[in-house]
Amino acid sequence: MQNKNDVKLHPKLTLQLFTSEKCFGPGVALILEKVKEHSSLRSAASEINMSYSKAWTIVKRAQKHLGFDLLVSKTGGADGGGATLTKEGERLLSEFRQCEKELNEICALKYEEHFSFIKDISKLE
Amino acid sequence: MQNKNDVKLHPKLTLQLFTSEKCFGPGVALILEKVKEHSSLRSAASEINMSYSKAWTIVKRAQKHLGFDLLVSKTGGADGGGATLTKEGERLLSEFRQCEKELNEICALKYEEHFSFIKDISKLE
Repeated sequence: MQNKNDVKLHPKLTLQLFTSEKCFGPGVALILEKVKEHSSLRSAASEINMSYSKAWTIVKRAQKHLGFDLLVSKTGGADGGGATLTKEGERLLSEFRQCEKELNEICALKYEEHFSFIKDISKLE
Repeated sequence: MQNKNDVKLHPKLTLQLFTSEKCFGPGVALILEKVKEHSSLRSAASEINMSYSKAWTIVKRAQKHLGFDLLVSKTGGADGGGATLTKEGERLLSEFRQCEKELNEICALKYEEHFSFIKDISKLE
């Protein structure tokens, strides 16, 4: 009870898509965004401090469970001359971020509805 | 693309409450539910294959960041004669589960809206 918190209590919502296991979530979405930015999976992975092989494993697993490709390599394999998003990858990324946004807006309202009692009872200043 | 999945693609939403760090989520909620069931933090931890000390650390961290107690020990300390939820702990648990439920209902609708295109393009059977 002693500690003052700099950051006010707030909700965090995480959206993931599962089959029998996780196949798409904020991590893969971030990789795809960085691939769009850099036109390269290697540069994308590097920017988020992830090994190339880990990033590629995550993307491959997502592709396998979704049943379609997210990335297409431009020349000489995924490790070669760069990568871009497939049309389906672009669509999925865009729908995922839009869905997250809409859910977060609703979550902000639900948070007020359900958790505003906390500020009346919390002993934190 | 080869693998058939037994489980259909579906969304999973995780609600957590943060200050500067995570302070409440499905894990603490489950501990509280099991404490209610067993009137003991030790039995609660044991049922979910968690060490007593880990469960107590999680509950203590949540209490510190929320600014109120979630558990009250019945006799002789938290490790002693059992534990029950405080009135505030009961309220938080109940609001958290209700909020999760409402968000999951909305998420099911949003999922259809944003991700139904996947079944048209997925090569999985």
